[in-house]
Amino acid sequence: MNKQQPLNLLETFLSIPSISTDDAHLPDMQNARDFLRDTFESMGFTVRMLEGKRHPAVFAEKIVDTTAPTVLIYGHYDVQPADPLEQWNTPAFEPTILNNKIYARGATDNKGQVTIHIMAAKTLIEQDNLKINLKFVIEGEEEIGSVSVEDLAQKYAKDLFKADYIVVSDSEMTSDGKPAIDIGLRGLVYTEIVIETATQDLHSGQFGGVAENPAIVLAHIISKLKNETGRILIPGFYDDVIPPTDKELQDYSLAQVTEKELKHDGNMFGVGGGEIEYSLNERRWSRPTLDVNGMVSGFTGEGSKTIIPAKASAKISIRLVPNQDPQKIYQLFEQFVRRLVPESAKLTIMSHSHAYPYKAPTDHPIFEIMKSSLKKAFGFQPVFQGVGGSIGFIPVLADALKIPCIMVGFGRPDENLHSPNEHFSLDNYYKGIEAMVDFYYQLPINGHSGLAKALSKH
Amino acid sequence: MNKQQPLNLLETFLSIPSISTDDAHLPDMQNARDFLRDTFESMGFTVRMLEGKRHPAVFAEKIVDTTAPTVLIYGHYDVQPADPLEQWNTPAFEPTILNNKIYARGATDNKGQVTIHIMAAKTLIEQDNLKINLKFVIEGEEEIGSVSVEDLAQKYAKDLFKADYIVVSDSEMTSDGKPAIDIGLRGLVYTEIVIETATQDLHSGQFGGVAENPAIVLAHIISKLKNETGRILIPGFYDDVIPPTDKELQDYSLAQVTEKELKHDGNMFGVGGGEIEYSLNERRWSRPTLDVNGMVSGFTGEGSKTIIPAKASAKISIRLVPNQDPQKIYQLFEQFVRRLVPESAKLTIMSHSHAYPYKAPTDHPIFEIMKSSLKKAFGFQPVFQGVGGSIGFIPVLADALKIPCIMVGFGRPDENLHSPNEHFSLDNYYKGIEAMVDFYYQLPINGHSGLAKALSKH
Repeated sequence: MNKQQPLNLLETFLSIPSISTDDAHLPDMQNARDFLRDTFESMGFTVRMLEGKRHPAVFAEKIVDTTAPTVLIYGHYDVQPADPLEQWNTPAFEPTILNNKIYARGATDNKGQVTIHIMAAKTLIEQDNLKINLKFVIEGEEEIGSVSVEDLAQKYAKDLFKADYIVVSDSEMTSDGKPAIDIGLRGLVYTEIVIETATQDLHSGQFGGVAENPAIVLAHIISKLKNETGRILIPGFYDDVIPPTDKELQDYSLAQVTEKELKHDGNMFGVGGGEIEYSLNERRWSRPTLDVNGMVSGFTGEGSKTIIPAKASAKISIRLVPNQDPQKIYQLFEQFVRRLVPESAKLTIMSHSHAYPYKAPTDHPIFEIMKSSLKKAFGFQPVFQGVGGSIGFIPVLADALKIPCIMVGFGRPDENLHSPNEHFSLDNYYKGIEAMVDFYYQLPINGHSGLAKALSKH
Repeated sequence: MNKQQPLNLLETFLSIPSISTDDAHLPDMQNARDFLRDTFESMGFTVRMLEGKRHPAVFAEKIVDTTAPTVLIYGHYDVQPADPLEQWNTPAFEPTILNNKIYARGATDNKGQVTIHIMAAKTLIEQDNLKINLKFVIEGEEEIGSVSVEDLAQKYAKDLFKADYIVVSDSEMTSDGKPAIDIGLRGLVYTEIVIETATQDLHSGQFGGVAENPAIVLAHIISKLKNETGRILIPGFYDDVIPPTDKELQDYSLAQVTEKELKHDGNMFGVGGGEIEYSLNERRWSRPTLDVNGMVSGFTGEGSKTIIPAKASAKISIRLVPNQDPQKIYQLFEQFVRRLVPESAKLTIMSHSHAYPYKAPTDHPIFEIMKSSLKKAFGFQPVFQGVGGSIGFIPVLADALKIPCIMVGFGRPDENLHSPNEHFSLDNYYKGIEAMVDFYYQLPINGHSGLAKALSKH
């Protein structure tokens, strides 16, 4: 494979600081869309922008044969903020190659993985071997909770997004470097709770003992949401959880991970935060969980200030598994938290975003084709694994069209997504392109693979 | 009384932004010391600066009769930061009079109260009626934990600070406006705990269920430090607490406060944070308490970021009562917290500052003189009350010299000390000067009051 062209394309994409959460980067978001438009149009795709709540999604399609299958590829062009900047060893938006890894914000999440599919399409087109129809939906709001794509999925399911398969690469290979196909996604409920006890901070000597402390109230609430063995204590929370099947548990055991590997992947001092009676893979993929994403109250500067804060707040996210419903879980959360707040405090609860969980129909034959393409490119038998994260678009579109979604991740778990020094393995990048070229080529057309059809023409 | 001179002096003092915690205000700290030096020297005092760890204390003395009693007056020239600035209705360092109250940072804490004593001395000097010796120690580090005055008290107890009485005005009258003499101070242990679980923030989907969450660990720790009925759960914490005497409880009941008054004073939505089985005054003055002064973890910006933070920290202060020892309590705290941290987390504990509690010898006859002076000026019988706050200097000096400390507060509980729109009642300012002129004049000299001695001269 010519490696310079795919590398140049990726470097250009990675040098655009398309940070969706920060309005100062609106021009960069536009630049990222322009880059995608130009790239797709140069490949003969028809491109249009689909308006979102904050940033448009890029839609591109190339219909080569209306009787051939259509694959819709989902990804995102936005990235997380790069801060804390001082922890980066190389500038976050100046892609730098070290030890065959490319370092930049968005390298693994998700620009590197999106570009694999663009390069696979480009390769097939240049070889005159693109026998199927391709559609891309590259959204710009994934890092701010995919606030529009569920609506877009509902709106365009029957026309623009109509497809036979969804393919998504926004996940990971195994810790030991085997290719992996994902059998599910967790859902998400992202909330924020604010406790207020006075209109302004108070002197902790003058009022200590008679002033309710919002940070302590918040601590008591949080301690009642999840106990120290990882069990979530919201009444009714686990009611709709479907345990993994024996087949899934078997798959998990093939993708076995050790505490040591997990600690390495996350630079963690230990493993914790989940239900200790479950295996590590179940805790990541089949069990719901609850985390505090951020928390603030009172004086947080250097040194000391003897105040009782007026206010304390926490951002709390809950990851869901089939068949938990985000609306229902949010209601259970809200009802429970309301009961925990003393009369001396005011509570505000906000819902920032939510996503449904997803379970892939892994007995569909398309998964065997993907396995075979991955094995050819990577040299290892792929494993089925779960994904701890959430992609709101997939369950909605898959459910609306009743089509399978194949999630194949080319990231590695230790590539620092959402952290400083994010990077992506160039080895996996090139092998990923190879695998996807093969997969798109092997897709059955009227019962035959593209390869069979190509041969029959001669 | 001529009201213009004391008002001008106070306005000049209040217009200096002497914020001790912020090095940007070092020149203002110098300006405040220069102001005090000029003021004292114009009154015939000898002034010297006593070096502190961060800011010198101003020492001024006027010895008129070596056989007469000496009063040492303690106060502070530093103020809290004024932020949040947008919540001030008038500029924090442009003293503004509204409804006979003067609004400025430091108005009630402590410049207004310090100036009462300066003006009382000035009045007696101008009337040629100063018959006792006066010493002032005005420190510049009170708002950053009085990090030097305990050392100064130890160092100068036998010479520079040698006195027969200590007088301090850094506290309050009753909620309903009666003059008050304070019978005790709480001590202080100010700590900070930091929980770390990884070297960087992690993706909450990827690691949720296997990554320890430091904010949740912190919440569990805090929830175990104090329960929801205000009881502190550190083993051995209450062992050395001396319950108030019957006389003290009687005094407390004379200074009775209602929940409604407390809510008004603190702009609180309710009363809480203390042991529900004790009266409100016991909770403020005779019971130790524990508060979170500040807390921070992870993402605290607008909106959402799906991370598991790497770190969480809380500033925690403990108010002590006689005979709790700050060193011992800090050790109990540290031992207990260490036990609460899971293996998957790293703990750092810091000690920011500490102060001993104090109990005034209210059966000493000097307290009767103070009561009489206050009653003359304010028209109400003064009450004995406690103080929830801490003044590290007092227990150390009072103990070293075995002399009584008379704490008489001229602030009001609703004057927003440490908060925006801090203010001080000008009525209490003028009456306070009157009361202190009378008190210093009435002090017994060789068994006679100053008044008796003055008369005997004629």
